[in-house]
Parts: sequence; structure tokens; C-alpha cells
Amino acid sequence: MGILPIDSGRYGSKDIKDIFEEQKRLDFILEFEAATALAQSNVGIIPLDAAKEITSLAKSGKITLKRTKELESTTDHDMAAVVNALSEQCSPNTKPWVHFGLTSNDIIDTTTSMQLRASLLIIEPKIKKLAEILSKKAVEFKLQPAVGRTHGQHASIIPFGLKFAVWAMEMVKHVERIKEGKKRFLICKTLGVVGTGSLMGDKALEVQQIVAKLLDLHPIEAATQVIPRERLAEAQFLIALIGTSLDKIAIEIRNLQRTEIDEVAESFKSGQMGSSAVPVKKNPIKSERVSSLAKLLRSLLSVSMENICLWHERDLSNSANERFTIPMGIILLDEMLTTMIKVIKNIFVNVEKVSSNINITKGQIYAEFILESLVRKGIPRIEAYMDIQRVAFQAKDNGKQFIQAIKDDTVLSKYFSEMELNDLFNPEQHFASGIKIIEKVSSTVCTELSTSD
Amino acid sequence: MGILPIDSGRYGSKDIKDIFEEQKRLDFILEFEAATALAQSNVGIIPLDAAKEITSLAKSGKITLKRTKELESTTDHDMAAVVNALSEQCSPNTKPWVHFGLTSNDIIDTTTSMQLRASLLIIEPKIKKLAEILSKKAVEFKLQPAVGRTHGQHASIIPFGLKFAVWAMEMVKHVERIKEGKKRFLICKTLGVVGTGSLMGDKALEVQQIVAKLLDLHPIEAATQVIPRERLAEAQFLIALIGTSLDKIAIEIRNLQRTEIDEVAESFKSGQMGSSAVPVKKNPIKSERVSSLAKLLRSLLSVSMENICLWHERDLSNSANERFTIPMGIILLDEMLTTMIKVIKNIFVNVEKVSSNINITKGQIYAEFILESLVRKGIPRIEAYMDIQRVAFQAKDNGKQFIQAIKDDTVLSKYFSEMELNDLFNPEQHFASGIKIIEKVSSTVCTELSTSD
Amino acid sequence: MGILPIDSGRYGSKDIKDIFEEQKRLDFILEFEAATALAQSNVGIIPLDAAKEITSLAKSGKITLKRTKELESTTDHDMAAVVNALSEQCSPNTKPWVHFGLTSNDIIDTTTSMQLRASLLIIEPKIKKLAEILSKKAVEFKLQPAVGRTHGQHASIIPFGLKFAVWAMEMVKHVERIKEGKKRFLICKTLGVVGTGSLMGDKALEVQQIVAKLLDLHPIEAATQVIPRERLAEAQFLIALIGTSLDKIAIEIRNLQRTEIDEVAESFKSGQMGSSAVPVKKNPIKSERVSSLAKLLRSLLSVSMENICLWHERDLSNSANERFTIPMGIILLDEMLTTMIKVIKNIFVNVEKVSSNINITKGQIYAEFILESLVRKGIPRIEAYMDIQRVAFQAKDNGKQFIQAIKDDTVLSKYFSEMELNDLFNPEQHFASGIKIIEKVSSTVCTELSTSD
Amino acid sequence: MGILPIDSGRYGSKDIKDIFEEQKRLDFILEFEAATALAQSNVGIIPLDAAKEITSLAKSGKITLKRTKELESTTDHDMAAVVNALSEQCSPNTKPWVHFGLTSNDIIDTTTSMQLRASLLIIEPKIKKLAEILSKKAVEFKLQPAVGRTHGQHASIIPFGLKFAVWAMEMVKHVERIKEGKKRFLICKTLGVVGTGSLMGDKALEVQQIVAKLLDLHPIEAATQVIPRERLAEAQFLIALIGTSLDKIAIEIRNLQRTEIDEVAESFKSGQMGSSAVPVKKNPIKSERVSSLAKLLRSLLSVSMENICLWHERDLSNSANERFTIPMGIILLDEMLTTMIKVIKNIFVNVEKVSSNINITKGQIYAEFILESLVRKGIPRIEAYMDIQRVAFQAKDNGKQFIQAIKDDTVLSKYFSEMELNDLFNPEQHFASGIKIIEKVSSTVCTELSTSD
Repeated sequence: MGILPIDSGRYGSKDIKDIFEEQKRLDFILEFEAATALAQSNVGIIPLDAAKEITSLAKSGKITLKRTKELESTTDHDMAAVVNALSEQCSPNTKPWVHFGLTSNDIIDTTTSMQLRASLLIIEPKIKKLAEILSKKAVEFKLQPAVGRTHGQHASIIPFGLKFAVWAMEMVKHVERIKEGKKRFLICKTLGVVGTGSLMGDKALEVQQIVAKLLDLHPIEAATQVIPRERLAEAQFLIALIGTSLDKIAIEIRNLQRTEIDEVAESFKSGQMGSSAVPVKKNPIKSERVSSLAKLLRSLLSVSMENICLWHERDLSNSANERFTIPMGIILLDEMLTTMIKVIKNIFVNVEKVSSNINITKGQIYAEFILESLVRKGIPRIEAYMDIQRVAFQAKDNGKQFIQAIKDDTVLSKYFSEMELNDLFNPEQHFASGIKIIEKVSSTVCTELSTSD
Repeated sequence: MGILPIDSGRYGSKDIKDIFEEQKRLDFILEFEAATALAQSNVGIIPLDAAKEITSLAKSGKITLKRTKELESTTDHDMAAVVNALSEQCSPNTKPWVHFGLTSNDIIDTTTSMQLRASLLIIEPKIKKLAEILSKKAVEFKLQPAVGRTHGQHASIIPFGLKFAVWAMEMVKHVERIKEGKKRFLICKTLGVVGTGSLMGDKALEVQQIVAKLLDLHPIEAATQVIPRERLAEAQFLIALIGTSLDKIAIEIRNLQRTEIDEVAESFKSGQMGSSAVPVKKNPIKSERVSSLAKLLRSLLSVSMENICLWHERDLSNSANERFTIPMGIILLDEMLTTMIKVIKNIFVNVEKVSSNINITKGQIYAEFILESLVRKGIPRIEAYMDIQRVAFQAKDNGKQFIQAIKDDTVLSKYFSEMELNDLFNPEQHFASGIKIIEKVSSTVCTELSTSD
Repeated sequence: MGILPIDSGRYGSKDIKDIFEEQKRLDFILEFEAATALAQSNVGIIPLDAAKEITSLAKSGKITLKRTKELESTTDHDMAAVVNALSEQCSPNTKPWVHFGLTSNDIIDTTTSMQLRASLLIIEPKIKKLAEILSKKAVEFKLQPAVGRTHGQHASIIPFGLKFAVWAMEMVKHVERIKEGKKRFLICKTLGVVGTGSLMGDKALEVQQIVAKLLDLHPIEAATQVIPRERLAEAQFLIALIGTSLDKIAIEIRNLQRTEIDEVAESFKSGQMGSSAVPVKKNPIKSERVSSLAKLLRSLLSVSMENICLWHERDLSNSANERFTIPMGIILLDEMLTTMIKVIKNIFVNVEKVSSNINITKGQIYAEFILESLVRKGIPRIEAYMDIQRVAFQAKDNGKQFIQAIKDDTVLSKYFSEMELNDLFNPEQHFASGIKIIEKVSSTVCTELSTSD
Repeated sequence: MGILPIDSGRYGSKDIKDIFEEQKRLDFILEFEAATALAQSNVGIIPLDAAKEITSLAKSGKITLKRTKELESTTDHDMAAVVNALSEQCSPNTKPWVHFGLTSNDIIDTTTSMQLRASLLIIEPKIKKLAEILSKKAVEFKLQPAVGRTHGQHASIIPFGLKFAVWAMEMVKHVERIKEGKKRFLICKTLGVVGTGSLMGDKALEVQQIVAKLLDLHPIEAATQVIPRERLAEAQFLIALIGTSLDKIAIEIRNLQRTEIDEVAESFKSGQMGSSAVPVKKNPIKSERVSSLAKLLRSLLSVSMENICLWHERDLSNSANERFTIPMGIILLDEMLTTMIKVIKNIFVNVEKVSSNINITKGQIYAEFILESLVRKGIPRIEAYMDIQRVAFQAKDNGKQFIQAIKDDTVLSKYFSEMELNDLFNPEQHFASGIKIIEKVSSTVCTELSTSD
């Protein structure tokens, strides 16, 4: 029952998949034909009665998938089949005005935009939802000191919540990008075979303007037979970019859930099997799935980029692949967002481990602060750097606590009082602006969520 | 009924899709479990009776998709579900030996190879078939002079058949690549959770060797939980590469079918609609579809490349995307091959136009030969070059035949006799080794086709 | 003398390359260190005198490339070397405050933004310039009827200028995207090792705000050690997208310059050699070069996408490749824009050929209009479609003018008067909204050019 | 001085860069022209004296870079300039026979193959060297038990050396791929402007055969003006694939060097600065650099794939980008190989940590073996699975050793004797075929190294 995992039911919510089902697609097409007829009657290109009949038929349910399939089998042209199915139901006076002045691709490009618009109604709230959840987690863990790691090495102290704040902010940026991009990629086109609006004379732009308004889309300013594919490439880029942000979060979770780090864990369904051979495994499989699908989203982008360079007033080399890339991109992104919302919402944070991991290096994680303290005391930076490195590397070799090694070192010990050292080795002294950043992100997320709707 | 165009029935032959249907997948899994049990009893790891029972059950039809689905819903693990479905049918004495020492991914990687092997049984003959057809077309048009174009400009004369010969040779190379690559990507693995063959002691390699033989695959020499993904990347590269060769052919056909060139045409079904708005169009839509899908095949390669870098003894970030990339790559390549075989087989070559196009430049296409003739006569190349350019550009500006312009030019005219010029302006004088190349390719194709099976 | 063609001098203008030369890079770094010191003294973190000394040194020319190279050879760390070179010139009281609280990557990410900002000062005006030239060409050819081609086939009539209008509008959209994107990718960061602004306490955000203002950049809201790489990916996407728009234009020119179409030609330098072997060739090599480099720009995007998923508070796996991708992307885009401006500015439009190409199909290009005319007369669309197809295909087979074939056809002839047919076969009757679209684009380009600065 | 890090001296060995320097390129071109002249005189196309003079001039050093640059500035054509520089030195009788019957691209494609051939003389030994070092490390650590990790979770026991064995085998496969691929991508072409060998009549194939032999290359069987680009795409794929294998190794090292895992460390130069702000850091920067550059190699592949579809007998859209992709791919791969050889050779393996990490899960890593033991004892697999999971999860929650938890569990305890349990919890009991695999790989590496030269 289905080869690819979207149709087999493995991936994709019902809501978002419905948008790409043939029935919904037919509905969008009929809505588009009706809107165009209405607009054309409005500016006097076709009779009002014809527009009314087309509109009423479009909503009637009389134009069925079954019939369009029959007609497609003889014409080898899926869009022509729909137009014929609509036309054959019309009265003789109306027939001439069905699909008047349009070309098949006006339908395809505009309904793609309608699908995208409908999908964004599902996807955007999920991005915001994720931003909100991430922001809450950031605030929840804003006072929890944690290891900051660079190059896989312990580097310094952060408030654990800062991780979530960075991601939340990334979601805010994605919302911003979508908001700004919509006017460019939610596009309506009714300009016919070669982009002149051939049969509508000088009223074609006016018609398109009205159709765009009726369908809550933006009219294309200038086109060939198709909407310029850089528009779709931008949408597909945003899909890949958001998916890659989710990948970044997923990779962090997979890393933090490592047996050796153990700071977080995805929730684990009772009765779930982590591995068919190893009964004790609790694998971060949701995050791994997000990472896996993200690679697919990134690859789809290159298809969209190659599609931009169509020949002359269009060639068909974008058509077959867009039948894959557009639904795949949107459905998988939605799946990944849903997954990541669930992962973050139910994430188990092992605060004990978050705290105790700070001590793995026996205090060497505080080296940055010792360095700056020495610098402030007037020791040349390079001299201080080399001294600290020397003492730290020795301490590591001897398994000694770094604070003790400093106290024992004739050079370094003279610069610090006991109390000073204790302060320097206290993680909570080193949040710096971390908390402020978290709070500012949290307030930004709130503002964005309320104003952008 | 189906969102993505493979499951909706738009693309993909029944034969190749069957290989990826869940039923066939289940068959492959059971075949693999049986082969492993047999191999293990062979080397004395499990009892012979158990192996016999597993083998017999595997072929019995008693392990149903329905049951595996039920079991999957509770364990959230598709491979464990199949193992359980098999196990529950076994007698108590056999149960312990089902899936013995294996991990889920042994199934996944090996059955992927079985799918690939089965697919190549369909795909390889099509590549050879296409090579054969191309080679025949090459021979058919080996004496037909045609324009050779570089930079989109008329450059020189070729035998029209040479185009087909280049493509035929490319197919021969693809057959060669597949033949050489099979030992690397048709791979069997039974080495368990972390690649040591954990529970089979030092006999794991022997077991794997036997299983590989039974399944007509190659055993992996060293693995983690998974077969190294560079193996699959090579397969996916070949898929993308062959697809791109087809794209190259498709683009040539689309270019030669341009209204202005008109040298070839895809066959056109009577009653077919080229365009819903323009009744006279005969569009090269099959070739355009091949070009479109080729972009998708290219993009899938980047997913496979990213999948190579799994962490440690494996992470799962290859899993979800391979559910798409492997069937998509194979099914679409098969579709494209079928399409291209049909296109080439039925291609209409407008020989009149092929011939008359040679004269579009009014003889300037022969400039290369005039140049070399002058050089042979001892005129310094650069001097000859500049003289020809001067006369040719003037002739073009005046709409004059180039041969006449040479005759009229005081500098150039003195070097050539009338007869000499007529020979130089005769396309059939300029096949050079073109015919020999075509014949050699044709004989290579024959040899390859007979020996490589 | 340079291996890669940017350093060998083949590609890249001096202006844009200067931005990426080591000297300019050092200047940017020193400007950044000075700005940070100033900001820190401003909020009371470091003494005003120190800030003044650092600022004055930064501008003094005393910190030389030569010295930083020497220092790098011992530390293996290019950024540390610059800081040391600056520090060693400072008075003892100032030394501690050099690079205070910063990490190397604060320098790297911020100076990258400074390079990008400087590059956009060169690139943006070129995009606008190109928009302007394209818009002028659109207007120049707004009354010139031309063939509109779909699938490589003649489809309908367009005003020749419409091609340029579509491209001009695409440039307008690129300007819009850059304008909106700048706040996201022209970013300043001074938040230190792990994004907390470690040593600046709760004033780190304030410092960053001031630095951003001084450098005309935007402060990052939340970061790890690095600015989130989705920011750079957006910039690299725009570079690839604009490059691909240029590729689309280039491909159109290459197609229109084909010997058989011959509607346009790139200008050709006297004495230039199109081909070393064929003296008469005039190849569209500038456009071909744009197409070639565009593939490179597209590929760089995938590097940027992969760079997003750094581990934890950063790993270094973005570093080495960004040394290539950022300068390559910017320098090559600038090269391509310059080339395309030159190509369009000097393009030779062969208006006679543009006109005469319309007649290649002997009138079949007007089929769309005959169809709609019949439909308006009440003939069922499908019936009209099939009749036209029949007559047109016959006419083509017989080499007959389509208008004559209609007059001779018993079915079709009865619907049209002589005058009506003449009008239908007059290209200038079929601009529809083409001219209006061109004029609107032209006015949009004007508006955008004046307001966006 | 130098913008991109190959020309600035940051990346690339002198040996490999020399191959791409302009002087070496000129040498290759002259070698090619001489070989062609020789071959042509051999089959009687040009006079023997001319061939001798060309050959002698080619080696004379009289054809200088300086002169070719001068000539290029007037003709705008780099290959024509070299031919002219050679020609102007010839005696009048020889002049006509310089570059006879060739086109510029014969030079370009053949010298690219010569560069590739020369590069492989450097690169192949490095791949073998790396295979050898990896294989030795595998053997060195074949008896060292270590954690096998899947999904980032401890999964089972491996001999530490197995990691190296998997990588060594991957290198063996790369050597195999290169060996098989050479006949396809080390290609010579002398077939002129449109692939017919225009001016050499029916002897063109024979000439090409001789030239190929002289240059140790393979003749192309059928071509247009250029060698089919799938040939170069295969080479570029192998470069990307090998680079990605190195990336995989690099990522493993980066992961194993994590502070929390600490099983390996890259060597660290005394005096080196890991971080400008944190004096104690020892970062795996060499491996990170390999990962970074690998992304670039992967991206270059997509350029090569796009280059395949040139129009007709060629267009120029492959030219400009190949000036980057070919040297970048080769030089960076060489750099990465050198780096990785150094990293593996000097890698510090912390065997104590490798051993002690096994105990992090308090024995849960042995769960796989407990499960199989129970299954062998006749417990139904699913029942055993669930029991182990229950006991293990409880033990984890209580911080209890897993072996103790089993002893304390009423269900599980009854199945095992004390001795049995001790054996099950002994890592050295679980190498299974690991050691055999390592030994077999080691012997394969030896065989391959000796026979493949």
C-alpha cells in the first residue's frame, strides 16, 4: 500500500496531506477557474451569466475526479481534462467562456500557490509554537549552569537555557522570512500562453489583480508562460532552511543524549523497542529522523535552483520534478516540525548530569576566567596564557583539580586569594549576559507571536 | 489516490514498483532470514531442524503483511515486527534461532541489496537495449551529413549518426560501471549489532559468506552496524549519472526539435493535445520529462553523500531518507530508460531539414576546411585565419554565398581552383573518421551486449 | 602566478577583490577591535584611555601584515596573531584591554559581515544598473512583435521587450530580497567564547549594540561562539539565486543567438578569435561564462547549508570551507553582473530576424487566436481545437500557409471573413497586455531605483 | 597575497600545486602538441621533419609563458595563444603542421587528463599509505575491548581496532575504484572541432590511438568537440567520495576526542594555541578541517554533474567552472589525505579511557548477550526482551550495576550461574569475529598494496 513513505502512511499528517490529494487539488482548480471567470465578467470580458454559471458549477460537486481521469486518458493532458470536465457541464452559452484566455500552467502555478498558502496556515503556527516552547524551555533553564562546548571540548559555562534561546530566535527569523517572502511566492498568474494575457487584451493585468485578491494571492508583475522559478526556489529554500534548523536542534539533542553526556533524553514510549537486538537502548530516534529528512529537504533545493533556467517562454523540464519536490518539501517539513515540537515539549533534562558534567575537566573549564583575571591584574595576555596552559596541562596529566594546581603553582598562586579563586570556580558567577539574552529572546518571541498574526 | 507521482501511478512501471511493494519486501526479508538460518545450521551454530522449519515457514505464505502491521503498531519498529511474526509461527525449539545473532539493519541493508539486484535485472537490459537502438540509429544515419554545432553556432560537418554513436558509447560505459560496481554495492551483511557478528563467535564471517552466496550477493568485509554508506553512494551516483546521460540525450532532442531547427521530432499520438490553448503544438514532452526527472536523480545523490558520515557504529540519520531515495532513484531511472527507448525507437528524423540546415550560413560552415587548405598551401595560419574571417563576415553582412565571396575576393580567390572549391563545399567530403567511429562503436556495442551477459 | 582563476587574475574586478585581500581584512579586524574597545569604555568596562590608544593604533598603520604573519607561524592561529600584533604595540596599561572579552570568532564573523557589507556597496548598484538597462531594452522593444516559444516550439506572439521586462522585474525582486535580508546577515557579534559575553557581565548586549552601530551592522540576538549559520546560508542563497537569474538570461541569449534563430548577438571585439579552428564563429562566450560560473554559485550554497548544523556551542567544520565559499560567491557574482551588464548594454538585436522568424511556421503561430475566435463564435472548444489541429497538421505536411489552408477548408472557412483572418494573422494585434506590463515594470524599476537608496 | 586559500598558501602541497601551475600546464600542452605531431607523421599525415621540429621546440624552453600571455591579450583566447607562440618559432615549412587538425579543446581535455594522471601519482600512494596505517592501527588495537555505539548510545563491545579496519577497507575500495575508473577518465582526444577528426580523414582514430599511447592515456571512442563530461563527473565523484570517507574518519575522531569520551586525541604541537580565549583547549582542528573541506568536495560534484548536459557538439558552459573544480578537488583531496595520514599516524589512544568507558552504563552494554543467552535457554525472545528491559531500566533508575540487578531479580536470576554471568559481563568474551575481520582486512590491505602497483 504505497511505496514512498508519504503515501504508505509512514510520514505526513492527514491535514497537510489532504492539501495535496487529488480531490483538494481539483477543488483548488475549480476555485481558480471560478475566480477568473468572475474577474473577467467584472471587467467586461465575459458575460456575467457565464461567470455565475461557472462559479456555481465549480462549487456544485458535479465535476468529479472520476470524470477528469476518464478524459485525461484520451488527451494525455491532466489540466485539459479538468477544463473539459467543467466545460461539458456548462450550457452552450457559457462553454466558450470556460478557461477563457488561460493556459494550463496558469492553473498549475496558481493552484501550487494555493496549496502553499494552505500549507503555511498549518506550518507557520507550528514554527511559532516551536518558538514558544523553545523560549519557555530557555526561561525554565536560565539559571541552570551548564557546559558550553566548542570543538567537542569543554570551553566555558553557559546557562543551559541559552541553547533553547538560540533556537527560539532562529524560529523567529524563519517566521520573519516567511512573512517577507509570501508576497514573492504566493503568486497568482492568469497571463496565458506567453505571459501577455493574450486574449484579454489590455485588461489582462486588471483581471489578474482581481483574481489575486479573490484567492488571497499576489499577482505576478511579469511572466512568461510560467511564474519565474526563482519564486518557487525561495519557498523551497525556506523549507530547506527551516528543516536544517530543525536538524541542528536534532543533532544537539542526539549529542546531549549520548551515553557519556546524558544531559537530555527524548521521551520513550513504554513498550517501545529501541533495538531489536539490544533491549536496554533508548535511542533519540525522533531527532535522528528529523536529521535524516533534513538531508532530503536540502537536496530538493538543488532541483528548484536548476528549474529556474527554463528556455524562452518556458520549457517543461520543471514539471515532473515539481510533482515530487513541492509536496515532499512541505509534507516532510510539517512532519519534522510536529516531531520536534513533541521532542522539545517532552524532553527529559537530566539537571544533575548537566551540573555534574561541568566538573569533568576538574575545573579546567574555568581557564578562560583565570586568564582574564590575570590580564586585568596587569599580566601580559600571552604570558598569562602560557602559564595557564602549562599548569592546566600538568594538572590534567596528574589528574589534579585545576584550582589546587593553581594554588600549588609558584607563579600563579601569588595572584589570587582563596576567595577570589572560589568565585572564579563557581559556575553561577559566569552567566554574564546569558540570562539577559534569554529574557530578551523570550520577550521577542512573545511580541512576534502576537503581532505577526 | 496517492500524492507523490510514483504512488499515484503517474511514473514507474509495474515490474519495478513491485520490487518495492511491501509484499515483495517481506518476501525478501523472509528469504534472507531463511538463508541466514541455513548458513548458521551449516556451520553448526543453530540446529538443522530449526533452519529447515524457518526456511519452510519463510516460503509458506503464513507470515503475512497484515500480521506484521499489527505487531509494528505496538513495537514502533518495523523490522522487529517481521521477526516477531516469523517467530510466533515457529515451534518452541525453533523460536530461539529465528533472526539469531542478527540485528534489524542486517535485514535492511541486505534486502536493499536484493531490491537493487532485482532492479538491475530490469534496468541493465534496458541500458543495453538503449545502447543497441542508439547504435542502430548511428549506423542508419552514418552517411547523412549534418550540421555540427558548438556554442549554438554552426561549426562543421558531422555524419548525423555520430550523435547517436556518442550516446551509445556512453551507455556502454554505464554497463561497464555497473558491472564493476556490483561487487561493491550488491552487499550482504549478517554481522549483527556492531559488526563483529557478536553471537556467532568466530564463525560469523563464514556464515555471511554462505548467505551471500545463497542470495547472489557479496559479503561485506568489515562493517559497523551498517554497510558503509559509500557503497550505496556509488549506486546512487550511477543512477544519477545514467539519468544525466539520458538528460543529455533529451536536451539534444529538445534542441533539434525546435521549430527553427526541426531536424527530429518525438512521435505524436493522434488525438494528443500538445497545449490546452495552442492546437498546433507538437512538444517534445517525453524528453522534457526525462530532463525534469534527471534533476531529481542528481539531487538524490547529495543525500547519499551526506549519509556516509554516520557516527560511531551507526546512527539512524540515513534511515528515513533512504526510504525515499532508493526506490525513487531506481523507479525513476527505469521510467526514464523506458521513455528514452521509446523516444529513440520512434524518433522522426527530418532528413531534408538535416540536409538543408547545412546551408543556413550560406557556406560559412566550411570555413574550417578553407582555413586548413590555405595552411597546407603554405599560408601562415594566422594570416589565413584573418583573411577568411574578413571575407566571411563581409559575406554575411551582404547575404552572399561564402563560396562566391571567396571567388570574388582578390586575396583568397587566387589560391583555389573551381573544382577544389566545389570539393571543399561538399559536406560528404568532410565525414573524416566519423563513419569509422560509428562503425567501431556499433561493433563495440554488439560485443558488449553479447559478452556481458 | 595563481592556480585558481580568481587569484590568477582571470575573474574578479580589482574593487571587489580588494575587499578580500589580506590587507583589507587586517584593516577590518583593527576597525572591529577599536570599535569594541570604544564601546567597552563607553559602558565602563575598560578605561577610556585604553580605548583611545587601541583606536589610535588601529588606524596608525603600525600593525602590519608582515608582523601578523610572523606571529602566526609560531601560534598556528591567524586571529590570535593579529591580536598579539596589536597588543605588543600597546602601553602596559592598555595591553590587558585589547580584545577584551572577545573570542577569535567574534572577529571572524563580524569582519565577514563587514566584507559582505562592503561588497554589497558594489554589487547592489550593479543589480540596479542591470535592472535599469533591462528595463530600457524592454521599453525599446515593446512594439517589436516576436515569437513566444514554449517547449522550444513557436507558441504565440509577444512584444520582444517582454523578455527584458521579466528579467528586469527579477532584478527588482533581488534588490528587495537583499534589502530585507541585510538585517539578518549583516551581523555583528561580540558575545565571546560561548555566546554569553562572558567577561563583560550583564553589559555585553549593550556593548554589542554600540559596536553594531559603529560598524553599521546588526547585533546578533542570541548566539553560540558563532553567528548561526542560517544567516550566512541566506546570503549565500541570494548569491546563488541572483547568479541563477543571470544564468537564465545568459541561456536565453545563447539560445536566441543560435545560428538558426539569430535574433540577438553578443558584441564581438574586432580581432577576437571565436574558435582557433573555425574562423567564422561568433560565439556567445560571455553568456556561456555566466552560465558556467552560475553552476559554481549554486554548488556553494550546499556547503553553506551543511555548515548550519555545527555541534554544541560550535565546531570548526565551517571554517576552512568558508575561506573559499564567501569570497568565491561574492567575487564571481560581481564578475557575472559586470559581464551581464556589458552583454545587455551592447547586445545586437537583429530586428529583421525577430520579425521574420514569426513566419517560420507559415502562420501556425496564430492558432491560439483562431481557436479563441471560434470559441467566441460559439463553436465548442474541443471541436474547434480538433478542427484547427487537423487543418494545421495538413498544412504543415503540404508546406501550405495556414491562412490559406483555413480559407480552403470547408469547415473552418465559413466562420471567417477575409478581413477578420487578416487581423488574426497580424502579429501586432496580439500584444494584448504585453505593452502595459512592460510599461508597468519600467515604472516599477524607476521607483525602486530612486527609493531604495 | 592571494585571496583563495589555495593560492594564499594555506592549503595544498607544493607537489600537487605545481601540476596546476601555468608553467606545468604549458609543458603539458607542448608535450601534447609534440605527441600529436609525432603520431601524425607516423601515419603519414604530416611530414616527419615538421614533427621533429615541433617535438624539439616543445622541449626547448623557447615557448615561454610570458610570450603566450602577450599573445592572449590580443586574441582573447588562451589556447590559440599557445599555438601561436609555438607556431611563430617554427620554420615556414613546419608552421602549417602545428596543431594540425586539432581544436583548442583537444588540448584542454587531454591536458586535464595529464594533470589528473600526474595527480593520481601523488594521491594514490597516499590512499594506500593511509590504508596501511589504518590497517596497522587496527591490528595494534585488535585485542582492546571498546564500546560500540549506535544512535550515540552504548550498544555492545567491539575490538577498538575494528574502527580502523572498516576505514582501511574503505580505502582499499577507493583504490579499486580509481584503478577501474582510470580507463574511463584518463582520456586523450585529438578528434578536432566536432569529433570527426575532421582534417585527418580516416586516419584520425589511428592518430589518437598513438597519442594516447605516448601520453599514457586512453583514447576516447566517440566524442563531440569535448570528451563526454560523465567521464570527468566520475573522477569528481571519486574525489568527493574519498573526501567524504575522510570526513567520516574525521567525525569519528572528533567524537572520540570529546571531553566526555576522551578515547583519542590528535597530537598537539607544543606552543600551539587551541583557542585565543581559552588556554586549556586541545581541539581536534585537523579533523575539523578535513570535515570542512569535505563539504566543499561534495559540492563540486554537483557542478560536474550539471556540466554533463552540454548542447549539441558542445557549449562552453563547462569551461569557466572547471578552472575551479578540477584543481580545487584534487589539491584539497591531497591536502586532506596528508592531514589524515598525519592524524592517524600520531593519534593518541587513551586505552585506559577506552576500557573504562565500557563501564559507564554499569553493565547494561552487555544486555544483548544476556538476551541471546536467555533465548538459547529457551525463553521466548519477546519475553526475554521485555524482562531485560524492565530490569535494566530499573537498575538505571537506581544507579545499580546491571549484573547485580539480574542477580537480585526473581525472574532473571534463576537462569544464570555466577560464573556464567561473569563470563557474560567480560568484554573480552565478546569480540566474536572482530579479530578475524581485522586480520582479514590487514591481509587484504597488504595484498592490494603489493599487487595494485
